[in-house]
Amino acid sequence: MYIVLTYDFNEKRVQKALKICRKYLKWVQNSVFEGEITFAKLEKLKWELQSLMNESEDSVKIYILKNEKCLSTETFGVEKEDDYGFI
Amino acid sequence: MYIVLTYDFNEKRVQKALKICRKYLKWVQNSVFEGEITFAKLEKLKWELQSLMNESEDSVKIYILKNEKCLSTETFGVEKEDDYGFI
Repeated sequence: MYIVLTYDFNEKRVQKALKICRKYLKWVQNSVFEGEITFAKLEKLKWELQSLMNESEDSVKIYILKNEKCLSTETFGVEKEDDYGFI
Repeated sequence: MYIVLTYDFNEKRVQKALKICRKYLKWVQNSVFEGEITFAKLEKLKWELQSLMNESEDSVKIYILKNEKCLSTETFGVEKEDDYGFI
């Protein structure tokens, strides 16, 4: 399946959340990630984020698409280069 | 059509960007909005954001879905209450 994940973490935890998400997905904007993922990996990703988060301060939203064809995207402004070497 | 819009604006412009997006969409997370929108209104929204943004600092990403049925969502943590009276 193809997912778009957005998060809003307190700055104390945001670097850890970023690191977790980048193991599974492509980083496309400050707090937005996307990519193909298996059901098993998505469960693992959710578990990792839930273990990190403070449920009264942080939030995660996952958009699950049947497939990438359901979606078209438009971007304007700065494009994030997720080179994986930066952080 | 149904869209999910995410942005990353410099803090000097982020309040204005928020105000623009809330005219057209539901605010669901710090920098994430979603909702049904017509083609004409989407063009207007894009024009307003492009007029505001600094293209070397800010970014906007729009996910356009054929329809809401293409999508399932999961949220955990804090849910944003977009009561329109707060800002």
